[in-house]
Amino acid sequence: MANSFGTILKLTSFGESHGPAVGGTIEGLPAGLELRLDKVQAWLERRKPGQSSITTPRKESDRLEILSGLQSYSGGGSYTSHTNGGPLSFLVRNQDTRSKDYDFTQKIWRPSHADFTYEKKYGQPIASGGGRASARETIARVVAGAIGKQLLQNTCSQKIQSSAYVCAVGKTSLKEEHHQKLSDQTLPWFDQEKIEASLVRCPCPETSAAMVQAITQAKEGGDSLGGQILVRFRGLPAGLGEPVFDKVEALLAQAMLSLPAVKGFEIGSGFAGTKLTGSEHNDPIQSFKAGEATFSSNHAGGIQGGITSGNELYFFVAFKPTSTISKNQTTVDKDGQQTRLAAKGRHDPCVVPRAVAVCEAAAWHILADLYLRQQLQIHAR
Amino acid sequence: MANSFGTILKLTSFGESHGPAVGGTIEGLPAGLELRLDKVQAWLERRKPGQSSITTPRKESDRLEILSGLQSYSGGGSYTSHTNGGPLSFLVRNQDTRSKDYDFTQKIWRPSHADFTYEKKYGQPIASGGGRASARETIARVVAGAIGKQLLQNTCSQKIQSSAYVCAVGKTSLKEEHHQKLSDQTLPWFDQEKIEASLVRCPCPETSAAMVQAITQAKEGGDSLGGQILVRFRGLPAGLGEPVFDKVEALLAQAMLSLPAVKGFEIGSGFAGTKLTGSEHNDPIQSFKAGEATFSSNHAGGIQGGITSGNELYFFVAFKPTSTISKNQTTVDKDGQQTRLAAKGRHDPCVVPRAVAVCEAAAWHILADLYLRQQLQIHAR
Amino acid sequence: MANSFGTILKLTSFGESHGPAVGGTIEGLPAGLELRLDKVQAWLERRKPGQSSITTPRKESDRLEILSGLQSYSGGGSYTSHTNGGPLSFLVRNQDTRSKDYDFTQKIWRPSHADFTYEKKYGQPIASGGGRASARETIARVVAGAIGKQLLQNTCSQKIQSSAYVCAVGKTSLKEEHHQKLSDQTLPWFDQEKIEASLVRCPCPETSAAMVQAITQAKEGGDSLGGQILVRFRGLPAGLGEPVFDKVEALLAQAMLSLPAVKGFEIGSGFAGTKLTGSEHNDPIQSFKAGEATFSSNHAGGIQGGITSGNELYFFVAFKPTSTISKNQTTVDKDGQQTRLAAKGRHDPCVVPRAVAVCEAAAWHILADLYLRQQLQIHAR
Amino acid sequence: MANSFGTILKLTSFGESHGPAVGGTIEGLPAGLELRLDKVQAWLERRKPGQSSITTPRKESDRLEILSGLQSYSGGGSYTSHTNGGPLSFLVRNQDTRSKDYDFTQKIWRPSHADFTYEKKYGQPIASGGGRASARETIARVVAGAIGKQLLQNTCSQKIQSSAYVCAVGKTSLKEEHHQKLSDQTLPWFDQEKIEASLVRCPCPETSAAMVQAITQAKEGGDSLGGQILVRFRGLPAGLGEPVFDKVEALLAQAMLSLPAVKGFEIGSGFAGTKLTGSEHNDPIQSFKAGEATFSSNHAGGIQGGITSGNELYFFVAFKPTSTISKNQTTVDKDGQQTRLAAKGRHDPCVVPRAVAVCEAAAWHILADLYLRQQLQIHAR
Repeated sequence: MANSFGTILKLTSFGESHGPAVGGTIEGLPAGLELRLDKVQAWLERRKPGQSSITTPRKESDRLEILSGLQSYSGGGSYTSHTNGGPLSFLVRNQDTRSKDYDFTQKIWRPSHADFTYEKKYGQPIASGGGRASARETIARVVAGAIGKQLLQNTCSQKIQSSAYVCAVGKTSLKEEHHQKLSDQTLPWFDQEKIEASLVRCPCPETSAAMVQAITQAKEGGDSLGGQILVRFRGLPAGLGEPVFDKVEALLAQAMLSLPAVKGFEIGSGFAGTKLTGSEHNDPIQSFKAGEATFSSNHAGGIQGGITSGNELYFFVAFKPTSTISKNQTTVDKDGQQTRLAAKGRHDPCVVPRAVAVCEAAAWHILADLYLRQQLQIHAR
Repeated sequence: MANSFGTILKLTSFGESHGPAVGGTIEGLPAGLELRLDKVQAWLERRKPGQSSITTPRKESDRLEILSGLQSYSGGGSYTSHTNGGPLSFLVRNQDTRSKDYDFTQKIWRPSHADFTYEKKYGQPIASGGGRASARETIARVVAGAIGKQLLQNTCSQKIQSSAYVCAVGKTSLKEEHHQKLSDQTLPWFDQEKIEASLVRCPCPETSAAMVQAITQAKEGGDSLGGQILVRFRGLPAGLGEPVFDKVEALLAQAMLSLPAVKGFEIGSGFAGTKLTGSEHNDPIQSFKAGEATFSSNHAGGIQGGITSGNELYFFVAFKPTSTISKNQTTVDKDGQQTRLAAKGRHDPCVVPRAVAVCEAAAWHILADLYLRQQLQIHAR
Repeated sequence: MANSFGTILKLTSFGESHGPAVGGTIEGLPAGLELRLDKVQAWLERRKPGQSSITTPRKESDRLEILSGLQSYSGGGSYTSHTNGGPLSFLVRNQDTRSKDYDFTQKIWRPSHADFTYEKKYGQPIASGGGRASARETIARVVAGAIGKQLLQNTCSQKIQSSAYVCAVGKTSLKEEHHQKLSDQTLPWFDQEKIEASLVRCPCPETSAAMVQAITQAKEGGDSLGGQILVRFRGLPAGLGEPVFDKVEALLAQAMLSLPAVKGFEIGSGFAGTKLTGSEHNDPIQSFKAGEATFSSNHAGGIQGGITSGNELYFFVAFKPTSTISKNQTTVDKDGQQTRLAAKGRHDPCVVPRAVAVCEAAAWHILADLYLRQQLQIHAR
Repeated sequence: MANSFGTILKLTSFGESHGPAVGGTIEGLPAGLELRLDKVQAWLERRKPGQSSITTPRKESDRLEILSGLQSYSGGGSYTSHTNGGPLSFLVRNQDTRSKDYDFTQKIWRPSHADFTYEKKYGQPIASGGGRASARETIARVVAGAIGKQLLQNTCSQKIQSSAYVCAVGKTSLKEEHHQKLSDQTLPWFDQEKIEASLVRCPCPETSAAMVQAITQAKEGGDSLGGQILVRFRGLPAGLGEPVFDKVEALLAQAMLSLPAVKGFEIGSGFAGTKLTGSEHNDPIQSFKAGEATFSSNHAGGIQGGITSGNELYFFVAFKPTSTISKNQTTVDKDGQQTRLAAKGRHDPCVVPRAVAVCEAAAWHILADLYLRQQLQIHAR
């Protein structure tokens, strides 16, 4: 169904940009799992609007409220709780909505927004703020991923780590270099601290500075930029993923392309890999000891046949430039008359810095779900 | 679940490369739908092995057998039937299996195949021929798509057309040029006839010839090539697709990345679009008449907010070079000892020509499913 | 999944008896549907605790709060709104929880409660108030049914009516007589007004008085009673229901047996029908005009092959006596020592009067879901 | 979806009475599970038509053919195989179909068959033999249950046993007595051998003889009989079942009411239990040792809160008399003209003897599915 994601660890999300709240219900958490809700909140902070001069000025406290699924609800901001085996439902209130800014959408469809297509789909104008097409919906995914991460870290015997960052903003890019080094397995690991130190969440200080400058310039010109995000996982057990439709990379691709503004996805060598020969692209097994393999290279991006190999998992996500720009644009109104539009509504001139937490969380959700599914194989032996 | 795809028009696939048969069950077909089974068979012919010197020599007749879901089964090769409202189950027998060619997989994992990961997942060696990881599984998807196409063509008032072809083989490429022209809406349409006239399914004769040469050369060198496929749809009604997880592009991405050997997916401007500014990338509405819009450009690739706009839908799919090569490769055996492997088993030196029908069919399946889902909106008004 | 019900009109419920809230998310509502939220609230009033001397004294206002899914949220208590096509999420706060009353469940499992089985399932004591096993969870089902009813009444061309009431409390029963008259099609219809006029929701004043007396007597003796509910629908279009697993009666049976304390379900002639011969039991078609049939009898209970025939749909639901009694009972504690227990916690001496709204609502939910599913057949013709 | 049942161990069934085959696809079997296919075949023999003078004369060999899901398919009638982790698809060919016998259904709807309702649903006459409404569809459920049983017996540490038999045919009944003894826990266990020794599958020789006589008499009079089946399980681990919608009894009820001709379901005390008081009906825990409890009585039927307690699980299923009778019946044709009908088509004068294997298998399927789901709780601790 359109609002659910995951098979065992299943999120059903709800909420619109300007409705009372956004949230979701997470099923499939085993009972007795320890949850640190302050850590979930910390993920929401990374996604939150209003973090800096290069993000939207919309002010939301984005405080997580848990409605069900815990053994006790006594806590303060940093409390620890345990799951009770039931669905964990949560919400975040929408506080700083300015629906008036969107009155014009009754008469005009904004270019490259969901306004026109929602109206065709639902037979009525899109709700103010973009309704369900708003990136506020991604709050639900961040919570699911933050909890999925805790599930994996509390139950999997291997130490799994993730690192996600911006590797391109407009034409400023780390990407090609990173691609090569990831295949060669020579790319250093970047801790979250280093990434968070950058306004744009790019761990290379020079590139970060150039990206901030590019975004600032675009913003000042009433324009916007796109970019790319790289997500990496180390320490994954081999064997996660399902044949056919629920391959790791298929679920990742669905999750990423279901985020607003995403136009592309690559696992491992991606589009560049199509230019290599098989003998160049294959990743030979280098050693096999104690049930684990090492590989001479990593064009695959950590999977084979849709299933994790234990090698580093990595993928790239492409975001188009933000559709909302304050520059004047040509469009037609709902009577078919040509008109001009300079957007109001508060938006990010470039979404990728805030989207980092969303992409990373969505991947943790998928991996936790696949981990639970794999338990059904392991414990049947 | 790992073996199902689609929400209303739902395929549940089954079968392994060297088992008795591959097939599937399609649910959600409304009763009374006219089906031309010869047309479904024609899709299987396009996917079939053994079509030319540049495809695998495995010989399979790939004859479709329908087990259920029809009002009558009176048969003949070109017969017309009608659905009965129940699940339509079908199979294709595996005939030319040579399991002996795979005996070595008891001792060695082939590089960049699913051998190692399946064994980690299932605790036993992968079945000969790759089991469920084999591209023979895609037969089920081709049938679902071929039937989805008939559903759309028989019930949708608009004339929907698709065109899918190879736009890159190794370093020989139409892609960048096509990308630009698709955004500008100046790319000519290529009929299936023109595409099928090419051994590699590339409608540009010069490029096609260069591609054939590249594949032949790779094959002779015991090597393999990757490539890219472009899929295009015209005439789609606006309003197909669901917000959030079942956006058109999210389902397409899942379907494509769930195909063997796929490493990347782009809708519309894709990765190149990340380098444009918002004012360059936005697709203004040019006119709106009789409920339909035209757009000045098409960076979006025919969707907005995950829902079709009526503009041309297009997406690119990246395939890595075939993992099976006859060149000697280094690997380790299951005791961890270094060894060398020169693959047996019959495989395509480049899978993209045969994969065209699969990508195109998978998209028809998705669009037919979303069309049925949209009926629930339309008829409730 | 354990927390969802429905295929198109899908409820995902959440919440425990003593957690912050109970609620749910309803997917599949078409956009633009008019909803009267005061009417939904009225359904909750019928299910609410504290209605009379024969129900639990727990005080809950059970105010419905809508979190998403509407075009606007402006309203007061009796407001009208419209759906926006997205998931409609809602909650009801738990207010009058007395967790201390349940402290003993850390040491003792109450007889015939879920205490022992939940602890075996989840490896930890059941949450106070019974957690997810509490009848408070049924709030979500009442909301789904109340909305399903509005969907059917606003979109189906036929006037569908329901009538549900208590037909047995302990040994005081209308049932056998009703069974015969329903088969003969001679049972009068009882409006909700008449039913609600009875403290026990039984439309026959004499029987109602006897039932009230029986419950009062049981309560005074520290004991409890069971009972039976009859649910009837008139005006249903023929053709609702799906072959095989989603037959109308199969979904009704699942929904009813998933309610706390339910031990039995009968559609139409039920267990009594097993004693008739085929020639007695068959319901001949009496007339067929303008696409609709009448039948000489109604042993079937309004369905054939799992699909509605247009004849009256009726089914019976059996509830065991409430497990919580204040009489002393023998049990063992978690160390295996024999002990005695006189229950605290506030409970109904007989649940059937309050369960009427739940059974009726659950059926509306199922029928609305099947109605939407049937649109996919109808509009494909 | 209408054709699937089960969450982890999921059956998707297909096929009509007079189509080429009936069968299904079973997902969720862990890899490496040993399967004895001859034992699955033995279950089909118990369900097969043509077993005796009191069953339909339709001749079907009902040979199981496995299409996928095994590590090897080397065959022979009694062979052992192992699962490969993929979907296990199977079919049984329809051989003895006499579609001509059903030509009249083009003009007349048979009373109390699915003919009328299918035509209203699908807009076209029901397929000959009843299409998907035929009891031949239950073959798929028998296979799923037979495999589910092997899964449980090969992986669960407890020895689980089932016993299912006919406890009523028409007015000849063991039921009331059995009900009491089951609550008291004094009913002896009947092995399959004893049950299969009876033509009607009733373990009490005198009652069995009376039942056979009653069926023979009904058959000779051109009439038919209904009956009741009791299904019992011993040795189940506590903790199987899910709160809310997937309670054990809810899934059992759905499965049973989805069988052709079923009109009622009771778990434990059922409808009779509604007449007891709470103090009579509660089942006190008698002892608790080594993690397992014993109970003083068993009105619950082996569950509490929808979850198995370890006590004997038992439930009753009510079947109406077969609709097809050779006696003359009044009906109307599709023009609304009164007419008379004496049925052709080959049918059982009483379906319960053959339905025993179906009810029992369906329960094994459910329990195996719930067992797999429970592994997710157990292995997360």
